[in-house]
Amino acid sequence: MDMSENNRAKKRRRRGGGREARRDSSGNAVDFPYKPFITRNINPFDILSDEGAEIIERNAEIILQDIGIDFRDDSEALQILRNAGCDVTQERVRFPKGLARQLCSKAPKSYTQHARNPERSVEIGGNNTVFAPVYGPPFVRDLNDERRYATMKDFQNLVKLTYMLPGLHHSGGTICEPVDLPVTKRHLEMVYAHQRFSDKPYMGSVTSPSRAEDTIEMSKILFGEDFVAKNTVISSLINANSPMTWDETMLGALKVYARHNQATIISPFILAGAMSPVSVAGTLAQTLAEAMSGIAFAQALNPGTPVIFGSFASSMSMQTGAPTFGTPEPAKVLYACAKLARRLGVPFRSGGSLTGSKIADAQSAYESSQTLTPTVLGGVNFVLHAAGWMEGGLVTDYAKLVLDADQLTMIPSLVNGIDLSENGQAMDALRETGPGQHFLGSSHTQANFKDAFWRSSLADNSTFEQWTSEGAQSSLERARERATEMLKEYKPPPIDPGIDEALRAYIEKRMQELPDTDY
Amino acid sequence: MDMSENNRAKKRRRRGGGREARRDSSGNAVDFPYKPFITRNINPFDILSDEGAEIIERNAEIILQDIGIDFRDDSEALQILRNAGCDVTQERVRFPKGLARQLCSKAPKSYTQHARNPERSVEIGGNNTVFAPVYGPPFVRDLNDERRYATMKDFQNLVKLTYMLPGLHHSGGTICEPVDLPVTKRHLEMVYAHQRFSDKPYMGSVTSPSRAEDTIEMSKILFGEDFVAKNTVISSLINANSPMTWDETMLGALKVYARHNQATIISPFILAGAMSPVSVAGTLAQTLAEAMSGIAFAQALNPGTPVIFGSFASSMSMQTGAPTFGTPEPAKVLYACAKLARRLGVPFRSGGSLTGSKIADAQSAYESSQTLTPTVLGGVNFVLHAAGWMEGGLVTDYAKLVLDADQLTMIPSLVNGIDLSENGQAMDALRETGPGQHFLGSSHTQANFKDAFWRSSLADNSTFEQWTSEGAQSSLERARERATEMLKEYKPPPIDPGIDEALRAYIEKRMQELPDTDY
Repeated sequence: MDMSENNRAKKRRRRGGGREARRDSSGNAVDFPYKPFITRNINPFDILSDEGAEIIERNAEIILQDIGIDFRDDSEALQILRNAGCDVTQERVRFPKGLARQLCSKAPKSYTQHARNPERSVEIGGNNTVFAPVYGPPFVRDLNDERRYATMKDFQNLVKLTYMLPGLHHSGGTICEPVDLPVTKRHLEMVYAHQRFSDKPYMGSVTSPSRAEDTIEMSKILFGEDFVAKNTVISSLINANSPMTWDETMLGALKVYARHNQATIISPFILAGAMSPVSVAGTLAQTLAEAMSGIAFAQALNPGTPVIFGSFASSMSMQTGAPTFGTPEPAKVLYACAKLARRLGVPFRSGGSLTGSKIADAQSAYESSQTLTPTVLGGVNFVLHAAGWMEGGLVTDYAKLVLDADQLTMIPSLVNGIDLSENGQAMDALRETGPGQHFLGSSHTQANFKDAFWRSSLADNSTFEQWTSEGAQSSLERARERATEMLKEYKPPPIDPGIDEALRAYIEKRMQELPDTDY
Repeated sequence: MDMSENNRAKKRRRRGGGREARRDSSGNAVDFPYKPFITRNINPFDILSDEGAEIIERNAEIILQDIGIDFRDDSEALQILRNAGCDVTQERVRFPKGLARQLCSKAPKSYTQHARNPERSVEIGGNNTVFAPVYGPPFVRDLNDERRYATMKDFQNLVKLTYMLPGLHHSGGTICEPVDLPVTKRHLEMVYAHQRFSDKPYMGSVTSPSRAEDTIEMSKILFGEDFVAKNTVISSLINANSPMTWDETMLGALKVYARHNQATIISPFILAGAMSPVSVAGTLAQTLAEAMSGIAFAQALNPGTPVIFGSFASSMSMQTGAPTFGTPEPAKVLYACAKLARRLGVPFRSGGSLTGSKIADAQSAYESSQTLTPTVLGGVNFVLHAAGWMEGGLVTDYAKLVLDADQLTMIPSLVNGIDLSENGQAMDALRETGPGQHFLGSSHTQANFKDAFWRSSLADNSTFEQWTSEGAQSSLERARERATEMLKEYKPPPIDPGIDEALRAYIEKRMQELPDTDY
């Protein structure tokens, strides 16, 4: 029993019954049942045949070989690729047939990302799925339903909520962009928030090589220098500048992490129709080529360094140019990309709970579900944006974080498949009960009812009369109340005070060194 | 060009530009693009292995052979089953091993349900999916957001909306229960509403044998006696009284329809944990046994009569007893049952857009999507409750009918799979565009953008600023406005005036004959 559990137990005794009951009914407020990640027992859903996959792979090779990929403003990257056997003309890199795939084969099929609490370490790859919250929004919709620029206080709150939500396995990275701190310095407080207010694994800064170095230095303080030298404790997002381009900033961060054996998520970021052809198969070939080029570069730099094949693909309204979410074409891209990643032999990142809606209404939930389901059934290994994403990624919504995360808690039951044990078959219950009787009192029901069915901690399934008498709340209103309660109940996970001081000292030192600029 | 199209064309010319533009942007208000049903090009998602299916099938045979099924208060049914080789003790019917499956093999693998407009006839079975609206609720939530008992006016409105919604292929049956008419008479106006206000296929009354006969007589007036003798023009819902019981009312209706070669949907209706064991595999074996017993009975009565294997399964909160929807266990029952039906060789009905929510909020959309996706990926052939279901089936919600039906329009694109034609591969676009450029102007984009991506007719994908300036509506508010507009724009499909008079005369005659009672 760790320190925080002890504290909770003490508190419980002090508080007594009424308080206790409320905490139980609120479900995950303090005592959160938690598995560090999900392991799927069911086969992924295939929408692309093996022959179809071969066509896409052939087309990706043509892109890599004939069209080529630009690696911009990074002569070191060009030299590494030239040395690996690529044909480099100015910044255009062409991979002779088979070379990219051969380099990709050096990447591990899966890797462990360690958390400071070993019980929360995650295995990324294979049949495993890890959920992380939204990444990147400059705005929040807060618990007063106000939409505004995000602050460091929001960042901390959202890390705390993510820590407490059992559906989320990973603390994520830029859960919102804290615009109240200078760009040059905010990464320090962002990394610290993940390290201090959560004990789940986290992502690192990628906005410059020196900020990636800061992430690694702070991780050495938290985990120990030796541990970080030998283990992966950071997974960071490296987006391509699609189509077929890698830029200096992302290459710079990639190089820092890859050299330290820290994981990078090599992600073509595609609004299909604008940044890729307006077709699923064309988007697939381009995505595969871009991901292979980035992974091949990482492996040429440091063979065996952990990577994830990432894909973010959205469709767009060809009438207005707006990105659209929860639509069938990105779902098909996702299913097919997941298969291509399996064939390439690397972990895969995609999907989430995406929506273009401005509020957590029916549209937002339809679209989020229509993204989450392919994510899960396709067999995605690392899921960024699994909760809290709003407005096409412009906004992190506190309430939607809680709503989406509740949905995530059903996934283990779904992907666990069907229990065909003797107890699962329940033939004794059928014999005992027989025609026209009910099963509520059967011994099988009594023995199994507690864990038999997944139950949402937010959905209202009461009668209309009861729901009305309790205030006729929408699920959005319930989620907002839940999030407010959770932040009140939040207790930070314990940390060695010496480590905490060392982290703060490092941050102070860097704050002194760095300029207050916004680039 | 039919009469209504002519009228629409004339009206357009009268009305001029501004009006026209609004109608176009409202999408499906009048000119609704329509396919009579969906044909899937992708394989269904399998969650149950072949070995698993064999276990369930063996258990179903044990239920049929050892435990038996009750056929209550219907000595004719018992005699038919005895003659077919069953062991009948009082009302308990046991099927010798293999007999039920052998009888089921006489059922057609698929059948055509004719609509009075031949362009709307549907093929039920095989790789096809047909969407029908919610069935059964005594309440509506109307366009003034009032929740109240349903009336015949609501029934007509909902049939009209269903007629206009391109996502729905079938007019359904009891789209709400019009409680303002006596139980003895309301079925006449219900059937008439489907016949007159829509030209999509419909379901028949099952609340007594004479009401089933009325449905057939009215269908003979509409389609012609000879046509009905040779074709299936009605599909009707026959629910089991689970566990393992068929009652007199359902058997009575089943017999009428089966004798006339009209289709019946033989549906175990199961709240798992109460009406079946509290496990997926136990619920599967019971569902299969119940469905097989009903289908076998229909085939013993009239070999070759069209049937659908139905399954309605919901989980329940084992804490409160409330049914719960959009949960993983019913999804697993659905995926597995669809496979069992395919192995049995009959069309399958299940799923829909189910929810326990009281309003069309995020909960309702998450739950509806989490039911609809298994429905589609599992390969369901006939989908009752595909739109409009609310409050666990107690309420038909006008706005949710429109919201759900909008989601249904994306399914054809999803199940069409990935276009791997040369145009789909888009290699020319990739060569033409190249690294760092955008694809908006490429000739491939110009040639394909119109049909490339599915677009919701209800979702808002505009910017926050634009959405705010347009009233900051939730998707529920937009749906309510849309439904209001649609009812204003509604034009009934043309009908031969002589047929309409004959239908009204039949109804008047029966109204005179029948008592005004509520049973």
